[in-house]
Amino acid sequence: MLKNISTNKLAYIAGFLDGDGSIYVRMKLNNDYRFGFQISPYIAFFQSNKAKGNFSKICSMIGIGIIRERKDGIMEYTINKQKEILEFLSLVKPFLVLKKKQADLMIEILKKKNNVEDFDDFKQLVDMIELYREINYSQTRKKHKLTP
Amino acid sequence: MLKNISTNKLAYIAGFLDGDGSIYVRMKLNNDYRFGFQISPYIAFFQSNKAKGNFSKICSMIGIGIIRERKDGIMEYTINKQKEILEFLSLVKPFLVLKKKQADLMIEILKKKNNVEDFDDFKQLVDMIELYREINYSQTRKKHKLTP
Repeated sequence: MLKNISTNKLAYIAGFLDGDGSIYVRMKLNNDYRFGFQISPYIAFFQSNKAKGNFSKICSMIGIGIIRERKDGIMEYTINKQKEILEFLSLVKPFLVLKKKQADLMIEILKKKNNVEDFDDFKQLVDMIELYREINYSQTRKKHKLTP
Repeated sequence: MLKNISTNKLAYIAGFLDGDGSIYVRMKLNNDYRFGFQISPYIAFFQSNKAKGNFSKICSMIGIGIIRERKDGIMEYTINKQKEILEFLSLVKPFLVLKKKQADLMIEILKKKNNVEDFDDFKQLVDMIELYREINYSQTRKKHKLTP
């Protein structure tokens, strides 16, 4: 659905993402996965449920992803299917100013994620994910501990 | 400078304002002013100084206002001249989704502010400013106490 969107709307969404959005990859310990971690890339937007109506307008403008209301009164809108993340970023990236690096890194990570064959590949993937901490200017940098 | 800006850039700025910006009027007790309050309308954007370079790009894109680095490491970009606020809002408003109401209210307040002749007018102005609390969904609603 994103494909038929006007460039003005794409520019608006890029501005909204730069201001309030999140491009990130969550790593969760989970032994059901090959290397002990579940890797979940996502793009997310948050708003108070008091702005529900207008926030939903932005979400429908984008036309992909899932919107849900959390128990704490926050509306959470996420895009977490790989295909949709890539489609979204390819269209929005030309208009990004603050989060261009995060977008590029996400695209690289998704490529890598689909080509993990052994533990070395997985380790490289994790190193790329760790880069988010540097880009996002976090003060503390806790390394994920891998157990092969 | 804003006038020569492309609609894509205006749409981006509207998205950034919806995501991270602030349209507000500060009331400060100040006996140098006629009714005991200084009324300061402003539009503001904030970012960590770690994103200084890219944040400055957005500010130059807009081309009006003042950027300063606070002691706490936050970059603050404000537009506070009435003429510039009006110019900015008239161009950006068509693209706003979340903060359209705040923009309309600001325009009304600036009109009113320039036509305050007596205490009744001033009281009406203050009532309009109080409306921001409702629009911004603040839980607590403290009324300003006027002393004529």
